[in-house]
Amino acid sequence: MLDLTPLPPRPLRTRRYPIEDLAENCNFEEVAYLLLYGELPTEPQLRDQRARLAAMRALPPVLCRALELIPREAHPMDVMRSACSFLGTLEPEHPGAHPDQAAAIGERLMACFGSAILYWHHFHRSGSRIAFNTDPADTLAAAFLKMLAQDGREPDPLHVQVVNASLILYAEHDLAASTFAARVTASTLSDTFSAICTAVGTLRGPLHGGANEACMHFLAPLRSPGHAQEVLEGKLQRKELVMGFGHRIYKGGDPRNAVFKQLSQTLSVRAGGDPVLYEVSQRVEQLMEERKRLYPNADFYAASAYCQAGVPVEFFTPLFVIGRTSGWAAHLMEQRSHNRIIRPTSIYVGPAQREFVPLEQRKAKLPRVKSLNRL
Amino acid sequence: MLDLTPLPPRPLRTRRYPIEDLAENCNFEEVAYLLLYGELPTEPQLRDQRARLAAMRALPPVLCRALELIPREAHPMDVMRSACSFLGTLEPEHPGAHPDQAAAIGERLMACFGSAILYWHHFHRSGSRIAFNTDPADTLAAAFLKMLAQDGREPDPLHVQVVNASLILYAEHDLAASTFAARVTASTLSDTFSAICTAVGTLRGPLHGGANEACMHFLAPLRSPGHAQEVLEGKLQRKELVMGFGHRIYKGGDPRNAVFKQLSQTLSVRAGGDPVLYEVSQRVEQLMEERKRLYPNADFYAASAYCQAGVPVEFFTPLFVIGRTSGWAAHLMEQRSHNRIIRPTSIYVGPAQREFVPLEQRKAKLPRVKSLNRL
Repeated sequence: MLDLTPLPPRPLRTRRYPIEDLAENCNFEEVAYLLLYGELPTEPQLRDQRARLAAMRALPPVLCRALELIPREAHPMDVMRSACSFLGTLEPEHPGAHPDQAAAIGERLMACFGSAILYWHHFHRSGSRIAFNTDPADTLAAAFLKMLAQDGREPDPLHVQVVNASLILYAEHDLAASTFAARVTASTLSDTFSAICTAVGTLRGPLHGGANEACMHFLAPLRSPGHAQEVLEGKLQRKELVMGFGHRIYKGGDPRNAVFKQLSQTLSVRAGGDPVLYEVSQRVEQLMEERKRLYPNADFYAASAYCQAGVPVEFFTPLFVIGRTSGWAAHLMEQRSHNRIIRPTSIYVGPAQREFVPLEQRKAKLPRVKSLNRL
Repeated sequence: MLDLTPLPPRPLRTRRYPIEDLAENCNFEEVAYLLLYGELPTEPQLRDQRARLAAMRALPPVLCRALELIPREAHPMDVMRSACSFLGTLEPEHPGAHPDQAAAIGERLMACFGSAILYWHHFHRSGSRIAFNTDPADTLAAAFLKMLAQDGREPDPLHVQVVNASLILYAEHDLAASTFAARVTASTLSDTFSAICTAVGTLRGPLHGGANEACMHFLAPLRSPGHAQEVLEGKLQRKELVMGFGHRIYKGGDPRNAVFKQLSQTLSVRAGGDPVLYEVSQRVEQLMEERKRLYPNADFYAASAYCQAGVPVEFFTPLFVIGRTSGWAAHLMEQRSHNRIIRPTSIYVGPAQREFVPLEQRKAKLPRVKSLNRL
């Protein structure tokens, strides 16, 4: 018989601090500092860090030219991955560099990823070559929203808070697939840019970072809680996957969800908010718990929070990248500090060796894909 | 007591064919077909495949422009990774595409990777924009050597044989770090270009594909077997790593080594060969077995074979990429055929939760990197 007792929620801590405290009280820059250097920064340390990151938001002109060559229709995560790869050719990590060089490159990338995607975006949407925000008075979150809006105005503080909190909530999450893949790349002693390219390409998939966008594509057309119920029940009957629910680690619910849900709720009751989107999300959450015993993960309310903060859906996963780059870089340092190549073995279970047939004697078979045979 | 009995060599088979038979009797195209479609091609199938691959050796003009922007001093593997990433923005894999789309993209990449690195190379070395070899009469190996030489002449058949055999020997090798990392990327349902970018970035490391270049950098300055012995003994005394020896899988020697060694030996006794390089390699091999009980892996004699076939050292790992792309694509199809996200968990063993300290109250500590804390 299925035990319907809800599992106790598992706490999430980043370097021993509860994630809720960090999301509520910190700028993302502080959490990035915590991840890269082990401690929360003091005021002078934070001032230095923010000045450093602000300056790093400018892109080299040759990277701008490369971004201009990427088609308008490209997938934003392909733009992020290519920007990272290209920057690796311009500012390579030297093989003999200190292992902690990953922190410096991590800072460079988390600072300039937003500039790259927004430069590409505006160039292809309006033909304009945007100026990069390098004002240390602006946090990464504020700078992102300013470069996105291009209207010269200060962004809504609640919108900044949503983006900032999302960067913190996305900053680090143990051996997520993207982080693990990046550690495999680093384990051959490859460079930090290669490892972060790996991570970006892995995060791109709909079973990982792509989930927040998939949530939004599901939620956007729902016109009312009743309509949401109807559509969801159809999906469940057809046994389709509902994105944003369940998590390999959090069977009893994702602690990041509460923060995103609160932000989404706060936005929904304000002018400019979208109460229907929030109510629809709530109904989907409630039904998924009742019917499937599944709880929302971080991506579910991230979608409605981002949407109400004026972030277009194509930037959801790129923002995930910007936040997680801090965690990836910290993991790369950890991997390098006691490296061993990550190279699993496998057991071959197929049929035995076959005899080689020269080209002239081969007979046509319908080509079909079999399991790989090595041994 | 150390057991000095040599371990029996482990055989290597690709889809159940001994690797030696394939390296000796096939063009790389046949092995790529075998990996992607499960069977060695018949003559008409091979003709189709070669025509398809030959046409795919041309690069889109916009990719050429992007390659021109990559600095002359860039690491060739960064060029390969960026070319792959950029092509993914130009010819994206559609999310609803058949899982076997990985085979088509694998073919595209194995065909055009050589064009990309050589276009970049010639553009920055001589300012010329090379024409791409799309002649189906030329194998991938021959086309690579022709585009490299740019002298309009037919390449030496033995040189073609070396490049061709190397592509076959490098084509597939189970869950090597690059292949495993690519499967982690694919396991989030990300696209084939992202997965191959991951693989290229992982292969780049000196503990993986970068080893053949590292071998050459070690071997090149050795002037005689005696000099080799002297240098090697110094390295062993200083407990420095000698590249090209030992393998996670082949404790008793790498079956690919015999093929490369034979090719290297054949070249060394011909006009244009480098007998000293071969003798020096032999002496290093012999000493490593005597002193360390370590056997050469595929990379060791690949270095002297490539070198004598006129392949500059910066193309060693890119050629590894071209060959292995066939294996990566086959693995991606296998991963997709029964996908589950590859997302390990970890056990946190550090100190417990700590209390959040507001910015104003933080005291300076010397920043230092600790283990990541999540739970």
